[in-house]
Amino acid sequence: MKVGFIGLGNMGSGMARNLLKAGHEVTVYNRTPEKVKALVEQGARGAATVADTCKGDVVITMLADDSAVENVVFGEAGILASLRKGAIHVSSSTISVALSEKLTAEHTKCGQRYVAAPVFGRPEAAAAAKLFIVVAGAPDAVDTCTPLFEAMGQKTSRFGDKPSSANLVKISGNFMIASTIETLGEALALVAKGGLDQHQYLEFLTSTLFTAPIYKTYGALIADKKFKPAGFAAPLGFKDTRLTLAAGEGLRVPLPLANLLRDRFLRLLGRGDEMIDWSAISQLAAEDAGLGEIQKS
Amino acid sequence: MKVGFIGLGNMGSGMARNLLKAGHEVTVYNRTPEKVKALVEQGARGAATVADTCKGDVVITMLADDSAVENVVFGEAGILASLRKGAIHVSSSTISVALSEKLTAEHTKCGQRYVAAPVFGRPEAAAAAKLFIVVAGAPDAVDTCTPLFEAMGQKTSRFGDKPSSANLVKISGNFMIASTIETLGEALALVAKGGLDQHQYLEFLTSTLFTAPIYKTYGALIADKKFKPAGFAAPLGFKDTRLTLAAGEGLRVPLPLANLLRDRFLRLLGRGDEMIDWSAISQLAAEDAGLGEIQKS
Amino acid sequence: MKVGFIGLGNMGSGMARNLLKAGHEVTVYNRTPEKVKALVEQGARGAATVADTCKGDVVITMLADDSAVENVVFGEAGILASLRKGAIHVSSSTISVALSEKLTAEHTKCGQRYVAAPVFGRPEAAAAAKLFIVVAGAPDAVDTCTPLFEAMGQKTSRFGDKPSSANLVKISGNFMIASTIETLGEALALVAKGGLDQHQYLEFLTSTLFTAPIYKTYGALIADKKFKPAGFAAPLGFKDTRLTLAAGEGLRVPLPLANLLRDRFLRLLGRGDEMIDWSAISQLAAEDAGLGEIQKS
Amino acid sequence: MKVGFIGLGNMGSGMARNLLKAGHEVTVYNRTPEKVKALVEQGARGAATVADTCKGDVVITMLADDSAVENVVFGEAGILASLRKGAIHVSSSTISVALSEKLTAEHTKCGQRYVAAPVFGRPEAAAAAKLFIVVAGAPDAVDTCTPLFEAMGQKTSRFGDKPSSANLVKISGNFMIASTIETLGEALALVAKGGLDQHQYLEFLTSTLFTAPIYKTYGALIADKKFKPAGFAAPLGFKDTRLTLAAGEGLRVPLPLANLLRDRFLRLLGRGDEMIDWSAISQLAAEDAGLGEIQKS
Repeated sequence: MKVGFIGLGNMGSGMARNLLKAGHEVTVYNRTPEKVKALVEQGARGAATVADTCKGDVVITMLADDSAVENVVFGEAGILASLRKGAIHVSSSTISVALSEKLTAEHTKCGQRYVAAPVFGRPEAAAAAKLFIVVAGAPDAVDTCTPLFEAMGQKTSRFGDKPSSANLVKISGNFMIASTIETLGEALALVAKGGLDQHQYLEFLTSTLFTAPIYKTYGALIADKKFKPAGFAAPLGFKDTRLTLAAGEGLRVPLPLANLLRDRFLRLLGRGDEMIDWSAISQLAAEDAGLGEIQKS
Repeated sequence: MKVGFIGLGNMGSGMARNLLKAGHEVTVYNRTPEKVKALVEQGARGAATVADTCKGDVVITMLADDSAVENVVFGEAGILASLRKGAIHVSSSTISVALSEKLTAEHTKCGQRYVAAPVFGRPEAAAAAKLFIVVAGAPDAVDTCTPLFEAMGQKTSRFGDKPSSANLVKISGNFMIASTIETLGEALALVAKGGLDQHQYLEFLTSTLFTAPIYKTYGALIADKKFKPAGFAAPLGFKDTRLTLAAGEGLRVPLPLANLLRDRFLRLLGRGDEMIDWSAISQLAAEDAGLGEIQKS
Repeated sequence: MKVGFIGLGNMGSGMARNLLKAGHEVTVYNRTPEKVKALVEQGARGAATVADTCKGDVVITMLADDSAVENVVFGEAGILASLRKGAIHVSSSTISVALSEKLTAEHTKCGQRYVAAPVFGRPEAAAAAKLFIVVAGAPDAVDTCTPLFEAMGQKTSRFGDKPSSANLVKISGNFMIASTIETLGEALALVAKGGLDQHQYLEFLTSTLFTAPIYKTYGALIADKKFKPAGFAAPLGFKDTRLTLAAGEGLRVPLPLANLLRDRFLRLLGRGDEMIDWSAISQLAAEDAGLGEIQKS
Repeated sequence: MKVGFIGLGNMGSGMARNLLKAGHEVTVYNRTPEKVKALVEQGARGAATVADTCKGDVVITMLADDSAVENVVFGEAGILASLRKGAIHVSSSTISVALSEKLTAEHTKCGQRYVAAPVFGRPEAAAAAKLFIVVAGAPDAVDTCTPLFEAMGQKTSRFGDKPSSANLVKISGNFMIASTIETLGEALALVAKGGLDQHQYLEFLTSTLFTAPIYKTYGALIADKKFKPAGFAAPLGFKDTRLTLAAGEGLRVPLPLANLLRDRFLRLLGRGDEMIDWSAISQLAAEDAGLGEIQKS
């Protein structure tokens, strides 16, 4: 397939590369052009403008937030103005339900198709084509894109016709991970203040009740206070928590736990260190228990 | 070994039976004597008083709460007055850190030994000798009791010399489970209000990020609103949340998530239905989202 | 002075009338023109467009929210395009800190002046020229407008040169009122469940420790469950809570109490009754205590 | 009247003195006897034991907490064992609803009468006979004690026959004050981070919407960070918050704001400074906003 790919960050680079490996004809674009070069060396066509990436059947966007997506979609030479009728915009960024709904409406107006396909997984998973891809949109459009998803992920889960459903799955999934971090943070603060060894405690939990890898991964980060380099930076965690709250506001769903997370991120970010992993919110429980400040390395 | 066993509820009956199966000489006592008969038929000796259970090497208590334990330990013919020097009291009940510390001190004063050995697992796990047993106390005392733990559980995890450490592990573990229920409750309310199918959502989560059995078990209960019969009744969940908060107060550890859980249980119990499963707190998020009241059976 | 006035709702009508009474030459505009007629009968000049209100020295906006203000300010025939150089836009609406900052910048770019002058007070206070007006902006601009403020309020409080400071005072003041409502709601739920008479309790509190009128006013509304007609409707309370949270996000200030209020409003509004007074959030504490549902009229 | 008075702390000394001034025959007792001497010099009779204070018509207790009251009431030579039939125990301490109910039952069993009469006011108000006294109990008993209340306070408010009702008023009143402190703390953190002067902000609020003296008093303490010497120490604020939560648990009333306060006090006390005023919880909002740590003197 002829595919455009916009957004070559840690995630996007790996995803685009896997499309190339699967034999697709990929045209790539990035706001800062250095990232383009590496992909071109691997067989991609480099595009100088967003419009340039919109000549094929599908264009995929993998960008930081709502505002970055709006910048490439709207405007004179944006995706909306450049994509041919019937072509598909696949949005893999973690964006708001509201923006996803707006994109659905706008693409429909222009005779284009829109599929939401946010992904779960860290950069290593993107590189290894091990992403979990959550997809929603018109069945024919999703069918068309399925070979692309299969090239980028280990599993594609479809959530119906309404694209924003996929975004809701992604947002709420991240909310669940952040809640797990907070839960671990409070439990570990409590047992540490009580004199227990955090690693032994985690070893017990993760070998009995909480066997999901997420507990091992985050438990170790928290017990070791290993928040750098960030696997997923705190500002992104804050952004996703706000997306959860915004989705809740739109749907009239109170979310007390998400409120707690919001305050945790605000407090963490208020210290000025934006390069820290989002799991560092766990240390606020420890700090409030008098267990010392967050280690900064 | 000659073992006394006090408390033949859903959990205790199975545990005592497994001690018998392993060949120990077990004397059983229960406040309401009907439960005694079944065990006697299986080879136990029935005791008419607490003191009667204290003639051997070890006496195990498996009771509902602090007050039940205090009732059998203190007083004229209680365990403290009846156990011979050097004998061991194993407390498997989920009790407060404070009471565990008091028991440690009192048994020491009387020349007796005290081991805390709370358990994780439902009644079926108790019956099948599949409990996870968390143990803390003087090493020699714990060593002595180890064959008993092996007869009752699938795994024994030792947490040092201080008995109350085991109680802290138990309490905080239950706090983590309750937090998981709240997290699922909020996430499921959000996606359901957004039009998604809760079962499909859970199927996705539990096959990707949240693979621990706990997510499958509780996710299904919540999505199906299947809160009866209770596997673990709401008043017990409330009790354990209060134990977590009390431990936090004693250690000066703020626990915002535990506070949220406390209010959830209070609100649930305020409706007068004490036979409902503790996972029903999840429905309060749904109710606040306008998704209808808790289904009652 | 020659003054334009945009927004003739419950608040704006009274304010414009008081400007007329004080002898100012007032041109009025409202999106729905019926409201204009009443003012014209009292001596105002009716304007058919926003631009028409911008011919004088000052134009005052008194509108529902950020979006309503943006609609009259920006765009081809908006205030920004219509006001002459050196003229002043006085914004009395309760708007976000962020929009106030944007208006400051945009008016400056156009050589115009901008003063933020949000008000505290109910419609009766607006009618009786008893508003408390909070003002911030360039001193000369504020001086110029002072006779207008004196015509509309009982007291003008200046908060420096930065217009958005006045908005922050207004927003946080409303947050404090909403927090007072929540506090009263919880305390009244507790004592009512304990068998006390809410009115006697309030009589005691308001004659001893909590003598501010706000406690009498809201205490009576809550104890009488008199939430209609709304003095200040719940959607406005929700809007202002969101403005508080947004200000906190911008400034990196966690606000746990504001989060609680947010969830209260979401839950209240989720029931679909948008005509209820904001003090009805107090009834959620009562409801959670099992004291019955909110009375609906 | 012949009155016994137990507990000569900052509050009790002033109260006992005012009884003397009013011409009553007062026998005083204190655990640490130095405080007794000063009262004896002013005409009181000094008692060497609790039993000694129980010879008259009424005995008043003014002690720190539940446990202190239990110590003087129960036991061999306690009030219960010493008071003659028909005599009255007036409890002015801030104690739990549960203990007040227990005292009601126990005194009744012994043929004695029990009146709850907790007080609002600082030590200066106690010295100046300016306390607000909240009274509940059997009407004849309350009538008998009324001259005593009039000697100690500026106003006596009766809340019916059930003694614990008075305790609920006292506890919930303190909850409302603590909530006001938290509200002020969050609002002041927000405006301070936004660049406003806290004193000017408070001057505005307390001269317009929040005119109750409590806002001036606590507002000034917070803005000046003047938390020492403590007017009401943080451990007492924590104790009263726990009493509020305990009352809520007993009555099945969730209290999210009281939970927030609980965590604030835990975090504050976790720093080890127990001599700080309870209004210092306000500084945690400021600290989380990055406005610096609590000033320590």
